[in-house]
Amino acid sequence: MLNTNEYFDGNVKSIGFEAQGTRSSVGVMQPGKYSFATAAPERMTVVKGAITVKLPGHVEWETYHTGDDFEVPGDASFDVLIEETTAYLCDYL
Amino acid sequence: MLNTNEYFDGNVKSIGFEAQGTRSSVGVMQPGKYSFATAAPERMTVVKGAITVKLPGHVEWETYHTGDDFEVPGDASFDVLIEETTAYLCDYL
Repeated sequence: MLNTNEYFDGNVKSIGFEAQGTRSSVGVMQPGKYSFATAAPERMTVVKGAITVKLPGHVEWETYHTGDDFEVPGDASFDVLIEETTAYLCDYL
Repeated sequence: MLNTNEYFDGNVKSIGFEAQGTRSSVGVMQPGKYSFATAAPERMTVVKGAITVKLPGHVEWETYHTGDDFEVPGDASFDVLIEETTAYLCDYL
């Protein structure tokens, strides 16, 4: 089953899938500032573009580029700043 | 604009976007055998999983894994075999 979702008035769209025993999604974010909440921990990988993120408990923003990844703890919220349209992979850990 | 599309009875879904001056899409393919047609040349990158492909004019199938990419000429068709659900990035060149 492939589940298409959209968030933030359609500025973020994703396709959820299950592969290699884990749940994942690929998606695209248009430029903007977004706040996401996690249930389980997740790993975000930048597929194309850049994600600037303020991780839970962090003071500074960090920018991740194509091929980079970062982990977000479960039961947390994190802020994301997108300056150019960006594709990502999210693996639920 | 993010354009969601589906093909092959929903077994392949994609999100089209424009970034860094090129049109691209990310998508997910469920297990199956598919035949795609290209208008422009494109580069496919395996985001997660594996794509086995018989490129136009080729006799043999080749398998590409996470992180690998391959180019497909424009105005051509190519066959794809998916054994595990696979996420991909397609850049239109």
